[in-house]
Amino acid sequence: MENQGISISSSHDLAKFRDVDFQGFFCYHKSLLKESRRRRCSLRHRSLGVRRGKEVRPEKRELIYEGRTKKLYQTDRPELIVQEFSDDAVLLDGKKKAKIKNKGALNNQVSSHLFEYLEGYHIPTHFVQQLSDCEMLVKRLEIIPLEVVIRNVAAGSLTTQYGMKEGLDLPHPILEHYMKSDHLPPPLLNEYHILVMGLATPEEIKLVNRIATKVNVVLRSFFERRNLKLLDFALEFGRHRGKILLGDEISPDTCRLWDSRTNKKLDADHFRQDSDSMREAYEEIRNRVFTKVA
Amino acid sequence: MENQGISISSSHDLAKFRDVDFQGFFCYHKSLLKESRRRRCSLRHRSLGVRRGKEVRPEKRELIYEGRTKKLYQTDRPELIVQEFSDDAVLLDGKKKAKIKNKGALNNQVSSHLFEYLEGYHIPTHFVQQLSDCEMLVKRLEIIPLEVVIRNVAAGSLTTQYGMKEGLDLPHPILEHYMKSDHLPPPLLNEYHILVMGLATPEEIKLVNRIATKVNVVLRSFFERRNLKLLDFALEFGRHRGKILLGDEISPDTCRLWDSRTNKKLDADHFRQDSDSMREAYEEIRNRVFTKVA
Repeated sequence: MENQGISISSSHDLAKFRDVDFQGFFCYHKSLLKESRRRRCSLRHRSLGVRRGKEVRPEKRELIYEGRTKKLYQTDRPELIVQEFSDDAVLLDGKKKAKIKNKGALNNQVSSHLFEYLEGYHIPTHFVQQLSDCEMLVKRLEIIPLEVVIRNVAAGSLTTQYGMKEGLDLPHPILEHYMKSDHLPPPLLNEYHILVMGLATPEEIKLVNRIATKVNVVLRSFFERRNLKLLDFALEFGRHRGKILLGDEISPDTCRLWDSRTNKKLDADHFRQDSDSMREAYEEIRNRVFTKVA
Repeated sequence: MENQGISISSSHDLAKFRDVDFQGFFCYHKSLLKESRRRRCSLRHRSLGVRRGKEVRPEKRELIYEGRTKKLYQTDRPELIVQEFSDDAVLLDGKKKAKIKNKGALNNQVSSHLFEYLEGYHIPTHFVQQLSDCEMLVKRLEIIPLEVVIRNVAAGSLTTQYGMKEGLDLPHPILEHYMKSDHLPPPLLNEYHILVMGLATPEEIKLVNRIATKVNVVLRSFFERRNLKLLDFALEFGRHRGKILLGDEISPDTCRLWDSRTNKKLDADHFRQDSDSMREAYEEIRNRVFTKVA
């Protein structure tokens, strides 16, 4: 449902909402969503001194972090950083590296689109704007060193570790926390580990889980309407001005997607050796993400 | 504190409790504990048709399960089974097997003593009585396929997986659930996995965690008074007549213990190659468990 998650902010809105005829319902609902997105984007930019119409492009400065597939750069504004996507791919749980032509740009396009889409559903993210093919302007976060994985369908470790059948629809989503560390694969954690190691407070865990669950509802539905089944995906979160924001990226690198009609696997895990097929799958996902659906 | 966890069941008891002078406090408290234990044991046995004084020894029948270190036998009473401890040892996460002379008897003695001790603290267990050197009569359980591990001090996977320093006192205990499976080492689970796989209900998880936490408080204190530090230990639970009972064993095989004065390691993990030293450590633990302390 395109209309899920819209908030009706005033009694005036509510009255308008009640008065619409059934045929006009979806158009009205959609225009509300657009308006809500526009207002949020504009507010987000204004608070950071970046005006939408007359954009001030922050100056990219020194490299502050280099990950496996991304680089982060400081800008002339302390609260904003540039996230640059590379064409590097990490396969086989980090045991193999490869270059996939155009992957950085594809991931940046998909991520930018999805972050903006989630903001429309009142999900707070670090996204500010797409700057270029491979660059995205984001808010600087104090990263919570957790990888939050949400699983809707059995695959990966659910099959190898717990003996579930691949492709099994779970009766309800499984939420997992992994520790961000050099240990590969990253170790699974429970809430006792998180608290004892001081990785997050109980309130933060609760909020992170709540946002992750909401992201899952919105994204599952988004992909379903594009004939893609969202099996599982990984999220990262961080602190910014006392708030928890969704960080990192949401791209074919972090989502396991299958074609929902044919069950064709479009996830990176599947193309462990063949970089050409992997690029094609990533392009297929990008194209579907940008498909206009009713 | 020997007296921890006693319930005062009537206003008469409470009045008596208030009237005791300070010197008499501990003696009185102890006698209450003894009485409480005696009554619970007697009730436990009576409900199963086994009378304490005039014991009816159930007839041991066919083997119903063979584990790595224990065998289970049916008896002529459907609700009772015999748990037989062997001298087999499983080391290096199941990769190495060894025979440790007298280990079965040592584990049976320690387990029987600790189960009886825990019953005195109103912790429901499957234990009925010790039958012989290596045999224990227990209630038949429908096993919950989880291994519940409680950790007070960093060791084992907390050091190898999460990079904690061995011997670090945790600010509060870590409770972990592992899936009982042939997969070695057994995989860690969170509550989402448990619920999706239907291993236990939310109420059962809550109860299992509550009992495990109580066992930890009682055993930590028990071992502390015997100059043993309880770093971590594993428990198993099962369903019996609609109740959750503590099952399996509590022995040097399932507890990681160090000498609290010298930090000498007395756990099986430490004696991976040397079965003589392992037997000595197990004997040392048995002796301390049976030491009378104030």
